[in-house]
Amino acid sequence: MSEMVAVVGDLDQVHFNDAGLVPVIAQDVSTRDVLMLAWMDREAIRRTVNEGRVTYFSRSRQEYWRKGDTSGNVQWAKTLKVDCDGDTLLVLVDQTGPACHTGAATCFDEAES
Amino acid sequence: MSEMVAVVGDLDQVHFNDAGLVPVIAQDVSTRDVLMLAWMDREAIRRTVNEGRVTYFSRSRQEYWRKGDTSGNVQWAKTLKVDCDGDTLLVLVDQTGPACHTGAATCFDEAES
Repeated sequence: MSEMVAVVGDLDQVHFNDAGLVPVIAQDVSTRDVLMLAWMDREAIRRTVNEGRVTYFSRSRQEYWRKGDTSGNVQWAKTLKVDCDGDTLLVLVDQTGPACHTGAATCFDEAES
Repeated sequence: MSEMVAVVGDLDQVHFNDAGLVPVIAQDVSTRDVLMLAWMDREAIRRTVNEGRVTYFSRSRQEYWRKGDTSGNVQWAKTLKVDCDGDTLLVLVDQTGPACHTGAATCFDEAES
């Protein structure tokens, strides 16, 4: 069982692009670092809210991608916010380990060598 | 004259989508709030770095949009970061006034009524 994810805004008002996706900014709820940007479709949003584990939709692999299933660096969603015009989401997460596949803490930092 | 904008990462490696745009996350450098997500093309990036004032490209109006020219709520870019795979930018800004057109501090907050 997951903890409840707080949803701020109306998920029914989210606008998806022609590929059925919406950009999602992940921010660490503790450090307030911006961790990464990825994409969700309606089903990825549903899974994220229901499970508490953040699930994205991979554009390159065209499949669902539950963050951390391969790396162990899972994201627990705490709050999911819809922006003013419904075309971006912000998910505040409890991040386990580094968020970036390079091993860096965020996708906006250089990996430690 | 603007102050210098620190660029982290290689702007020549940015990947633009089919519309020639890349998503840009704006974060307040002081409060660390995520303010908004908007889009830049190569020219908007150039203007932002050269002027220090953040310039986006409006998808709905198909024109350059220098944040604050209408509202007065300008963004001064302090640092512009390229993410690990070059398909997202993060701009750390000094935000004047509210970032959202609704009057809310960020596009992820409800406007005060």
